[in-house]
Amino acid sequence: MKIRGAPVIGITGAYAVALGALKTDSSDIKKFRNALRGIIEAVAATRPTARNLFFALERMRQVAATAGTAGKTRDVLVAEAQKIHAEEAAATEKISLSGAGLIEDGWTVLTHCNTGPLATSGWGTALGVIIMARQQGKKIDVFVDETRPLLQGARLTAWELQKAGVSFTLVTDSMAGHFISSGRIKCIITGADRIAANGDTANKIGTYTLAVLARENRIPFYIAAPTTTIDRNIKTGRQIPIEERGPEEVTHVRGLSIAPEGVRAANPAFDVTPHGRITAIITEKGIIRPPYTASIKSLF
Amino acid sequence: MKIRGAPVIGITGAYAVALGALKTDSSDIKKFRNALRGIIEAVAATRPTARNLFFALERMRQVAATAGTAGKTRDVLVAEAQKIHAEEAAATEKISLSGAGLIEDGWTVLTHCNTGPLATSGWGTALGVIIMARQQGKKIDVFVDETRPLLQGARLTAWELQKAGVSFTLVTDSMAGHFISSGRIKCIITGADRIAANGDTANKIGTYTLAVLARENRIPFYIAAPTTTIDRNIKTGRQIPIEERGPEEVTHVRGLSIAPEGVRAANPAFDVTPHGRITAIITEKGIIRPPYTASIKSLF
Repeated sequence: MKIRGAPVIGITGAYAVALGALKTDSSDIKKFRNALRGIIEAVAATRPTARNLFFALERMRQVAATAGTAGKTRDVLVAEAQKIHAEEAAATEKISLSGAGLIEDGWTVLTHCNTGPLATSGWGTALGVIIMARQQGKKIDVFVDETRPLLQGARLTAWELQKAGVSFTLVTDSMAGHFISSGRIKCIITGADRIAANGDTANKIGTYTLAVLARENRIPFYIAAPTTTIDRNIKTGRQIPIEERGPEEVTHVRGLSIAPEGVRAANPAFDVTPHGRITAIITEKGIIRPPYTASIKSLF
Repeated sequence: MKIRGAPVIGITGAYAVALGALKTDSSDIKKFRNALRGIIEAVAATRPTARNLFFALERMRQVAATAGTAGKTRDVLVAEAQKIHAEEAAATEKISLSGAGLIEDGWTVLTHCNTGPLATSGWGTALGVIIMARQQGKKIDVFVDETRPLLQGARLTAWELQKAGVSFTLVTDSMAGHFISSGRIKCIITGADRIAANGDTANKIGTYTLAVLARENRIPFYIAAPTTTIDRNIKTGRQIPIEERGPEEVTHVRGLSIAPEGVRAANPAFDVTPHGRITAIITEKGIIRPPYTASIKSLF
């Protein structure tokens, strides 16, 4: 959790494989490939949900197979990690530009978790859209969910919006509904950790609730994510593995106990928003809308 | 906020008036009544949302008018406060008994904030229903929302359920939707701070969101509250005053800062759930259902 945000998890995974390869001193190609397989498996086991990690590892695996010697393989792995990094950063700029067109002048936008440069490199995904809209001269106000348990909204999104000079109000996750139903919030935009072939989207716990609140109050709910977050091998959200983290993140806030001793707590890190509750998905290849099975296919 | 929970706010308000009257040493009835008016106004200004406070103060005002001397007024005020206390405690037992009939054996029930004896005297409202169902021998599991910002669920409901021997799991408010949509939660039950004549209900911030999630997933959403929480002078939820508390409750958790310095935060303590999202309201005079304008009228 020192590394977080699906795109940055993918980029870091690629660099981790390249670094591991550089540290593997064997010049025997068979031994080197065995070691590389172990490195890729170890990196794959770090986080189960973010699609971008597996996308990046697959590219590293494929590019490694093209080089004939251990030395050359090390070179292509380093180059491929840098390429993935550059492509993901470039994708966030395209996402931010096309997404900004959906945000109207004067709107108040609600976002959840952290999807800025800290999580994605480049511009950010959902937060990139918001910051781009502001930089285009639109008057934008933002509501930031604190995003319990790990408070990525309060700690990271608040900091990034301060730095970007965007006006915002911090709220607890439980307050979003109040401001949505009062008419204050004009749209909701979040990132994604994995998008199934039918558009069902896994993202930070609490995202599903926002999508339901958006539908109830007839405001748009947008997902912003690079196409590397889309997993066409997975048909629906039911098949997306959801990371279950330790209970102490719920029973404690930054090390401080907030519940009686011995309390049982659940801690799913992500939830799945069904495609029927998503107004549009903003990718670097364009904005797609329902029916997602067809519109996702058209992206590839 | 040392005193919280609508019924206990009402009971404590009545005792505060009685205590104030005992400390007012004037034997001149006019001077005494002037002082009493000031005491009631001061108590009324403590919390704007909970209906029970204004109900209790109105009863204290009325009973004070029936006694001819300062001494006698003091006596009737003490007696009336004790009567309000006894009636509210008795009401929670009736609520718990009739509400328990709605909870089926084997169900997992989700609740928000704290509605046990600490908040209501007697059995509790929503929590009383849950504990009564368990004591009737039903196998009940509970999901407890931590209830940011002040964590009444994590601190108080968790403690009360531990004491009552009821099995429960603590979750952040943002996790409720995940467990509701997965089919794990069979019903939601919360208390109320003020119920308008049409059934619109103000309760702890986050309650509205749970009612919307219940409707989306076709499970019942129940309110448990004494009839003293119903305010027939208020036609709809739009007229219920919502207490706005200090931003430091959002930017800090139990004194620990969780956001960058200088961040703006909103902190509405309550939200309003529209009557159309409430399956039933459990009162000490019986369970009422839509249309609430008629069913509420029938209670009085």
